[in-house]
Amino acid sequence: MLTTFPKAPPPELADVRLTIRSLQPQLVRWRRALHQHPELGFKEINTAHLISQQLTQWGIAHQPGVAQTGIVATIPGRRPGPVLAIRADMDALPIQEQNQVPYRSQCDGVMHACGHDGHVAIALGTAYYLSQHPDFAGTVKILFQPAEEGPGGAKPMIEAGALENPSVDAIVGLHLWNNLPLGTIGVRNGPLMAATELFHGTIHGQGGHGAIPHQTVDSIVVGAQVVNALQTIVARNIDPLKSAVVTIGEFHAGTALNVIADEARFSGTVRYFDRAYSQFFPERIEQIIAGVCQSHGASYSFDYQALYPPVVNDVAMADLVRSVALSVVETQAGVVPDCQTMGGEDMAFFLEAVPGCYFFLGSANEDRGFTYPHHHPRFDFDESVLCIGVEMFARCVESFCR
Amino acid sequence: MLTTFPKAPPPELADVRLTIRSLQPQLVRWRRALHQHPELGFKEINTAHLISQQLTQWGIAHQPGVAQTGIVATIPGRRPGPVLAIRADMDALPIQEQNQVPYRSQCDGVMHACGHDGHVAIALGTAYYLSQHPDFAGTVKILFQPAEEGPGGAKPMIEAGALENPSVDAIVGLHLWNNLPLGTIGVRNGPLMAATELFHGTIHGQGGHGAIPHQTVDSIVVGAQVVNALQTIVARNIDPLKSAVVTIGEFHAGTALNVIADEARFSGTVRYFDRAYSQFFPERIEQIIAGVCQSHGASYSFDYQALYPPVVNDVAMADLVRSVALSVVETQAGVVPDCQTMGGEDMAFFLEAVPGCYFFLGSANEDRGFTYPHHHPRFDFDESVLCIGVEMFARCVESFCR
Amino acid sequence: MLTTFPKAPPPELADVRLTIRSLQPQLVRWRRALHQHPELGFKEINTAHLISQQLTQWGIAHQPGVAQTGIVATIPGRRPGPVLAIRADMDALPIQEQNQVPYRSQCDGVMHACGHDGHVAIALGTAYYLSQHPDFAGTVKILFQPAEEGPGGAKPMIEAGALENPSVDAIVGLHLWNNLPLGTIGVRNGPLMAATELFHGTIHGQGGHGAIPHQTVDSIVVGAQVVNALQTIVARNIDPLKSAVVTIGEFHAGTALNVIADEARFSGTVRYFDRAYSQFFPERIEQIIAGVCQSHGASYSFDYQALYPPVVNDVAMADLVRSVALSVVETQAGVVPDCQTMGGEDMAFFLEAVPGCYFFLGSANEDRGFTYPHHHPRFDFDESVLCIGVEMFARCVESFCR
Amino acid sequence: MLTTFPKAPPPELADVRLTIRSLQPQLVRWRRALHQHPELGFKEINTAHLISQQLTQWGIAHQPGVAQTGIVATIPGRRPGPVLAIRADMDALPIQEQNQVPYRSQCDGVMHACGHDGHVAIALGTAYYLSQHPDFAGTVKILFQPAEEGPGGAKPMIEAGALENPSVDAIVGLHLWNNLPLGTIGVRNGPLMAATELFHGTIHGQGGHGAIPHQTVDSIVVGAQVVNALQTIVARNIDPLKSAVVTIGEFHAGTALNVIADEARFSGTVRYFDRAYSQFFPERIEQIIAGVCQSHGASYSFDYQALYPPVVNDVAMADLVRSVALSVVETQAGVVPDCQTMGGEDMAFFLEAVPGCYFFLGSANEDRGFTYPHHHPRFDFDESVLCIGVEMFARCVESFCR
Repeated sequence: MLTTFPKAPPPELADVRLTIRSLQPQLVRWRRALHQHPELGFKEINTAHLISQQLTQWGIAHQPGVAQTGIVATIPGRRPGPVLAIRADMDALPIQEQNQVPYRSQCDGVMHACGHDGHVAIALGTAYYLSQHPDFAGTVKILFQPAEEGPGGAKPMIEAGALENPSVDAIVGLHLWNNLPLGTIGVRNGPLMAATELFHGTIHGQGGHGAIPHQTVDSIVVGAQVVNALQTIVARNIDPLKSAVVTIGEFHAGTALNVIADEARFSGTVRYFDRAYSQFFPERIEQIIAGVCQSHGASYSFDYQALYPPVVNDVAMADLVRSVALSVVETQAGVVPDCQTMGGEDMAFFLEAVPGCYFFLGSANEDRGFTYPHHHPRFDFDESVLCIGVEMFARCVESFCR
Repeated sequence: MLTTFPKAPPPELADVRLTIRSLQPQLVRWRRALHQHPELGFKEINTAHLISQQLTQWGIAHQPGVAQTGIVATIPGRRPGPVLAIRADMDALPIQEQNQVPYRSQCDGVMHACGHDGHVAIALGTAYYLSQHPDFAGTVKILFQPAEEGPGGAKPMIEAGALENPSVDAIVGLHLWNNLPLGTIGVRNGPLMAATELFHGTIHGQGGHGAIPHQTVDSIVVGAQVVNALQTIVARNIDPLKSAVVTIGEFHAGTALNVIADEARFSGTVRYFDRAYSQFFPERIEQIIAGVCQSHGASYSFDYQALYPPVVNDVAMADLVRSVALSVVETQAGVVPDCQTMGGEDMAFFLEAVPGCYFFLGSANEDRGFTYPHHHPRFDFDESVLCIGVEMFARCVESFCR
Repeated sequence: MLTTFPKAPPPELADVRLTIRSLQPQLVRWRRALHQHPELGFKEINTAHLISQQLTQWGIAHQPGVAQTGIVATIPGRRPGPVLAIRADMDALPIQEQNQVPYRSQCDGVMHACGHDGHVAIALGTAYYLSQHPDFAGTVKILFQPAEEGPGGAKPMIEAGALENPSVDAIVGLHLWNNLPLGTIGVRNGPLMAATELFHGTIHGQGGHGAIPHQTVDSIVVGAQVVNALQTIVARNIDPLKSAVVTIGEFHAGTALNVIADEARFSGTVRYFDRAYSQFFPERIEQIIAGVCQSHGASYSFDYQALYPPVVNDVAMADLVRSVALSVVETQAGVVPDCQTMGGEDMAFFLEAVPGCYFFLGSANEDRGFTYPHHHPRFDFDESVLCIGVEMFARCVESFCR
Repeated sequence: MLTTFPKAPPPELADVRLTIRSLQPQLVRWRRALHQHPELGFKEINTAHLISQQLTQWGIAHQPGVAQTGIVATIPGRRPGPVLAIRADMDALPIQEQNQVPYRSQCDGVMHACGHDGHVAIALGTAYYLSQHPDFAGTVKILFQPAEEGPGGAKPMIEAGALENPSVDAIVGLHLWNNLPLGTIGVRNGPLMAATELFHGTIHGQGGHGAIPHQTVDSIVVGAQVVNALQTIVARNIDPLKSAVVTIGEFHAGTALNVIADEARFSGTVRYFDRAYSQFFPERIEQIIAGVCQSHGASYSFDYQALYPPVVNDVAMADLVRSVALSVVETQAGVVPDCQTMGGEDMAFFLEAVPGCYFFLGSANEDRGFTYPHHHPRFDFDESVLCIGVEMFARCVESFCR
């Protein structure tokens, strides 16, 4: 177990106001330390301990234990002004790392395969920088959030008051993104990431001998027709100008090839951007299951869970981030103004609570082999992205808290 | 219009008791006369007139106008005994004959394409023979029935009392059959021909612009799923040891390729042998339509009509016919003991009313080109079958009325 | 038949330079004259005659007979500069008008049910205004186009050289739009309207008696599975971030309920925005038809036609139109900046040839009952939109030709 | 482990010629001994040992080890004549008995749940009786067969020469049958039991993230369409006058609800009576899988295994058994002349090799609770059926070997 970051911050950090770029070696050290010691959602105990240790060392007020392992740090500016929150998620994934790098995960079956280690390092760097350069108006709150990968730490943090005292006016957050080249920034007005919902269903037929179908209700046949009919939701029921996905990821039925299966179980996920559809999917999916079951004399059980709402950026905040991004990357081509993905994120809850903007920060580098997708056992990213992340946040503060 | 048969019966027919075989030339003349002047169901006015004329000439008591155009002839035997009915259907089909034979139909668009002309000729020959050879115990009633091809004359004849006064004890009937070689006799205990039922359905969706599917309920998509689901009736719901057919013969929807169809209309036929299924099909088909419609928010209309029940032979009467057949064809190979077809016949109603046996009399002859199926515009049969038909009926009388 | 517009232009039009608003009474007269005398695609003979008559009266050089009934008018500015084209489509629809207005269609079964009468009136007003106010740099070409509703007049006009001599630098066009309130302007960078493609398919099964399915290949069952499988294109094969529609608008099979249908015919339409999909749909649809047919031993024929490509606005031109729109409607709320529809337009061909922008001009007015959708027999629009259309075009010229 | 039958045959068996009925107590003792010590297919070591011990005790020549655990016993009649084989299967099932009877299975997880213990007892009784009453012409061979429940011992016994030396002229066999009341005998000319075949298939799609369907080939969607299309085999491709079943008993795909499944595995069974279909099913099923996969760009693997052919009785031998049955049960109602079931049996192989007849012997008794179906953990039968079985076989010998 790791109880302190491997090295104390270099002297210059303690001594002088540095440019952000000079933080880069330290950002890499933090990130690698975290990468070697990944922790699953709501178990980020050591991660939280290290964050707290640093904040304390820098004299930054913070409250640990927010939603179990979350931390809320508060950095006052020199002058009064608005409150901007910066969000960083901390948790790792139940994946066995396959990279052979020196800083590879030391925990079997757990890995920072999504880049949250980088998110924490960037947030720490931002906190340090802001604490050294408090020449802004207002307050910055840094939210170290647990369990983004599920079941979700954003909502519990909000419920625990993370956005109050002082009350947050806006929020920003970023995700390192291997779908974009290093340093490219992707943002969007409105929906950036999709609502993420899930369902489980079971067709209850009537099992029996495979040679005597007329005495049974064949749950596989009924289930196949349900799968078929579910395709019409996206094909026919959704406005073609809107985006939606209905995926059945699992279908399991039967225990013997000559026995008609008593029940067929299936489960899937739903994605969409437009909140107007939030009631639509559970009702429509159940309507299809119910109707098809009725047509064959089967019954069903159905459970639907709206995990995360869509990640919807405030237009003004997205404009702010887009403008900041242009000043950071210094080229129009480095900003993707209409980025969008069907993936989900519980940053969505923060953005439902206060206006804000979530954005992607490109972390791929083909030349150096950083091309594996997120959640892949060989995922890794180009660490030179870290100081760009700090600069993005620092300039957001500069722009918002003026 | 034909008002008498083209030639008066030859002298020998009027003068002497002939063997059945000697009737053959006359049977052919009758048949050809009828073939040239086919009449549709319940319009067999000329046909009935000719039959009545002959019966009168032979002094056979008969009642015309039974169920509009039907005739019931009664031939008493020398001794008292049971009452056996012989049934012959009289109607033709709305088909344009494509044969170029001298005796081809003289009525455009109407044709004896099923062999009922032969049935009438055989029944007339039988009547003549029995009137000349009344050495049997009991009574023979010959039922000349209209409209077998639909809407059905058997039921109205029964309702008109054709099986009463005297009360019929058993009934026999035959169908010339081009699926069997000339002279072969096909019979079966129990169900020989299928129940014939039909249905019409309409899916009421919600039409709209082809590019705006989400504001519509696409009746073609719903209808396709109904067609699909209906396949499971035979595949899954019917005892595999039983026979059944569910065919959708028509499906029509839409008037423009870029407009979502408001409604989809379909119709079909159902066939089965086992009377236990008589309630099953309308309920099961409607259950499927209702369930699939419900699953897509469509509504429907549905109409089901049980046209004819299955043709079910009495075991004892089938044994009698089988035994008679052996004596006529004089070879085991000439009798198909377990013949069966999914076709339907309103002989079924007679067999529901009294025990009896319906059988097939092979009329195909490949060497002479008599191979077209029934209802084909080039259908024709080997006329040498006619005297075999008379002999079958005569021997049935001999065997039953003893 | 109408041979001149009902009234000569009022004196003031001939005498003085009027503000655009003062053109309104004349715009209405033109529009109503056209509305009473609608003409189908490539039959716009009278329409073209009237346009030509006006242009001649105003001394505007123009070439008639471009792509049969099209006209290209050329209006030089005072100074040299770029060439801007303005496009107006002229054709009506084969629809019987159900409105009872004084200016209702006098041609049975033909109606300006899409607003092209308004488009011509606006273009005429623009031509007149520009000819009176030639204080712009460059040249304006007004393209009166036939047959937008199909088979398409834009492509033939381009092939006939409408964009040459002088060579067109950019193009604008508008569509009156009852989906937007009066005066609201809808525009978009990139794809505004969808590619419009169509297909016809036939499943060749093997017909037969409805009671003998095993001797047939049931084209209705095969066709139903094709319809089903086609749903997966939008549901599974299209990037959820992209828009697409695959609609089967017609499905026809079978002539009798007890006969298995020999063939099933279907047809449909495809819509999408992203040109990258232009090869995808015909291949994917045929792959589905081919595979399903193969699975059932059926064959097929298939015909696919790419009618119109997507209507894709140039970003700079869309910015120009958006900026012009703001100056015309004088309120942010009056401009929909990301308008989009799955409908199609052959304006697409012009926009493939030169950069340009097509936009919607809201013409609905709920209070006055102008709410029926385009192509509806009761379609009509608020005529006060006409002078707004002229002002939009005039200001586009002002902005582009400076 | 059981090494001898629990009691020596009662004195009277060794001393005198008994009527068959007097064998009943001994039949019960044998049956119960076997029931307590069930053995799975090809592991019938103790069962074979006990049979051999008895045969030896009675001086009946026999060859053990035929197809591993099978035994062929040969009983010569007094006079020369034909050779009749009697077949008895010996194996138990991998089922945990839930009956609480004194003679319940002493082997955990193994149970005589199909009545083969009774079959062996009847065959032993028959052997004993015939050896004591050899007043027949010819030879009786009794075939104690292993592994009927699978993978099948009949074929290996034939290959090992069980039907040779002396060459068998005909064969009979019976199955105790809880679907018929005690003592009722079910038989049929031609196909009595169905061909039993099985298949395994896998749809190879292309897995991926559940939110990115367009980069995948969704094996669950493809598999559902395969299941759907397979329904048309019985519904459309099989002669409705024939019987067939195609059941998919297992369908398994996917490991996570938000991941599109890479592959879908399914397996099923096929049943039919008519040998003409023996090539049809594997070809038709694969055609459907191949076509549907092709329509979606998936590939597949498919394996089909024809386990047992249909059990087809020779007409003459079925007539013999029907006649014998009438003499045994002494009532027409006690013989079901057209019995048939979609179940399978490897008796089929013997009946393909020599003419013969397999029949059902009713063993249910509702009053005494013997109503559970075969293969049920509470299956048991009325033991008073045992001496009826012996009498059936003895009289078959009497009738055939005369």
